[in-house]
Amino acid sequence: MTRQTLMPNAYVPGATPLAPEDEARITRRARLLGPAYRLFYAEPLHITRGEGVWLYDRDGRAYLDTYNNVASVGHCHPKVTEALARQSQILATHTRYLHDGILDYAERLLALFPRELAHVMFTCTGSEANDLALRIARAATSGTGVIVTDNAYHGVTLATAETSMSVGPAVAPGPTVFPIPAPTPENYPEGIAQGFASAVTAACARMEAQDIKPCALIVDTIFSSDGVRPDPTGFLAPAMAAIHAKGGLFIADEVQPGFGRTGGQMWGFERHGILPDMVSLGKPMGNGYPMAGLVLRPEVIVDFGAKARYFNTFGGNAVAAAVGLAVLDVIRDEGLMQNAATVGAAFAQGLRDLSTRHDSIGETRAAGLFLGTDILTDGKPDGTKAGRLVNDLRREGVLISATGPQGHILKIRPPLPFSLANVDQFLTTMEKLLKT
Amino acid sequence: MTRQTLMPNAYVPGATPLAPEDEARITRRARLLGPAYRLFYAEPLHITRGEGVWLYDRDGRAYLDTYNNVASVGHCHPKVTEALARQSQILATHTRYLHDGILDYAERLLALFPRELAHVMFTCTGSEANDLALRIARAATSGTGVIVTDNAYHGVTLATAETSMSVGPAVAPGPTVFPIPAPTPENYPEGIAQGFASAVTAACARMEAQDIKPCALIVDTIFSSDGVRPDPTGFLAPAMAAIHAKGGLFIADEVQPGFGRTGGQMWGFERHGILPDMVSLGKPMGNGYPMAGLVLRPEVIVDFGAKARYFNTFGGNAVAAAVGLAVLDVIRDEGLMQNAATVGAAFAQGLRDLSTRHDSIGETRAAGLFLGTDILTDGKPDGTKAGRLVNDLRREGVLISATGPQGHILKIRPPLPFSLANVDQFLTTMEKLLKT
Repeated sequence: MTRQTLMPNAYVPGATPLAPEDEARITRRARLLGPAYRLFYAEPLHITRGEGVWLYDRDGRAYLDTYNNVASVGHCHPKVTEALARQSQILATHTRYLHDGILDYAERLLALFPRELAHVMFTCTGSEANDLALRIARAATSGTGVIVTDNAYHGVTLATAETSMSVGPAVAPGPTVFPIPAPTPENYPEGIAQGFASAVTAACARMEAQDIKPCALIVDTIFSSDGVRPDPTGFLAPAMAAIHAKGGLFIADEVQPGFGRTGGQMWGFERHGILPDMVSLGKPMGNGYPMAGLVLRPEVIVDFGAKARYFNTFGGNAVAAAVGLAVLDVIRDEGLMQNAATVGAAFAQGLRDLSTRHDSIGETRAAGLFLGTDILTDGKPDGTKAGRLVNDLRREGVLISATGPQGHILKIRPPLPFSLANVDQFLTTMEKLLKT
Repeated sequence: MTRQTLMPNAYVPGATPLAPEDEARITRRARLLGPAYRLFYAEPLHITRGEGVWLYDRDGRAYLDTYNNVASVGHCHPKVTEALARQSQILATHTRYLHDGILDYAERLLALFPRELAHVMFTCTGSEANDLALRIARAATSGTGVIVTDNAYHGVTLATAETSMSVGPAVAPGPTVFPIPAPTPENYPEGIAQGFASAVTAACARMEAQDIKPCALIVDTIFSSDGVRPDPTGFLAPAMAAIHAKGGLFIADEVQPGFGRTGGQMWGFERHGILPDMVSLGKPMGNGYPMAGLVLRPEVIVDFGAKARYFNTFGGNAVAAAVGLAVLDVIRDEGLMQNAATVGAAFAQGLRDLSTRHDSIGETRAAGLFLGTDILTDGKPDGTKAGRLVNDLRREGVLISATGPQGHILKIRPPLPFSLANVDQFLTTMEKLLKT
């Protein structure tokens, strides 16, 4: 097994014959970008255009995008690109001058949170947001020990990569990072809520045995790279109490589930009835424009604010503010959170129906338009089969990927304007493939 | 002294009476963004529009921008904003699909470097680029010890903030970071080139005494926050040899000096006749669009590439590539590197002429349109006077800031289309203030 295959659905050079022009493009890419970049699919896609839930390749072939959560209000949404074009022609400077745009956006954004989460700070990427959360948590607790799940992903900076178990043992866990089992029924037969909380307490004890003071529990509230683990709702509440009891903070990583994707609410943490200390935001925030942020309770930044300052050259610039506002407008005006709830429920039901007819399809776990479906052989996880299905779907014009420590879980995460007709196309294509 | 004043030219709440609407705006800002943000100037500026070398406030008053190096080809340059608008309406996805835009841009960019620097990786911010450089250097050397100058600035991630002495002792240096004195004649009376190299060797010895293996020497090649230290050209060569002799890598931080600002060349390291192992890029790369990158020798990423992968959701997306190409086109088509050389030389000469008539003006150090001028009283550094001058210039419609560990150095760093007439306006305004 090459290292490439550690990432589910990664292109493996030489494994599949490709058109000469794509082979040339891949060679050029390796020459220019080096060995650390990966491509999706056994046959990489050459995408040239995007619109709504569709991506188009160089030959004009349409692919139903059931995967990309960055272009969350739809690829190249005209209201967002208009706001981007307009503001970039007026002003794009930073937060060390006064500007109403960033304040108006901050106010609109914070209105979508419980009022205790009263501040927002702006970065350019989710990695920077989680990295800043760790810096602030260290200052607030004077601890360094961080608890994560055992296939977590939280970013690519040195500090966040060390918390990202899913990128492999050469990178994570860092010396002060303590992984705990993901919240699955198999890992916690005693019940996920109590089991997961006990694991947090046990991790704190392991820290303390090494003279490491607890700093934070950070979780992606949909547990995407752990295989999509939304249920039972409320299970995070005891875990948050457990980290608080040890003096650590609770960081909700909403980079993937945030901005309405989970359907009934704007943020994944709301499904658990909890009030996080910090909430990191990213990918869908600017629908592709590089912007991200960190929402927090004012208490947690008192120490950091007294000892340090924060400036992010591009973060919170006037263009980011205009784009972010346009994204919030579109989510509201097009009812995308509600659409995620209704279409997501139909999507999950359709996958569950499929599983009654096909043994390869196991459990589907979902919250709104964030879905994970287990692929099985003889009732056991089968990452190879999941990879084959992902690549077969791609050949049939439908884009998804796979996830989880064994790579056997289909990760389904379309742009939010996904329709019932789109769901039907997905399910029809899937059933056709399962029959052959 | 409040913590605010540790940042030269920071607004100090309550210190200066402001218009009620600005007081209200600042209160609103603190409520929404929290205590870690800073504003420039005793009387903060409310900027609403930018064009070329000009920024305009809410009343339409024009300010000559002699400071902002992000909008390096001019605020809101139409060729750049057109490229941004056009590509954002077509496609904005990531590097896990094939796309020619990013390869074309990578090729154009790498053609501006010595051919040994053959790979480029894309991030969104200079902080992320330096953070990635540290990750790669750790993998390549299996060391962790990093050498920086004693008022360095390299970023805001946890790892890069720990290398950024200029943000204060509560943040830096981290436990594996070893500061050395900045390359000034006062610090190295024996000669900067040999003295600075000896300091690198001595820092490695201090590391080894703590069982820390050398990893990298990272320097901003213009030493901006150390007070702008461009000369003598070539002085970095022995320092690079010194870190190489101890098994560490040399990282040239070109986030500030890069993209033609230093006049005679695209990159600050070229003035020193050296070949860095890695070169980080940022601020001016997208003229305000959040993009940055890391250029490197293929040898240094072999270990990282074998053990880890790199993916930055927004980094290197199709829009960034289009914007980056437009910026390179404008630099070439408008001769901005040459303009930086000729106008920068006239600017430096004008400041040196001023110093012959005014005792407050000390030495000016410059490379192209990156200038630092010492402000003195009785021949000694005077940060208070420098701060007053910065604020007086702002009242007269000219924007700069101050830097250096004592805050007594004027930092002058205008957009590259700066003209001789702009220089004249600056010098005339400055002389008027010095006479009163």
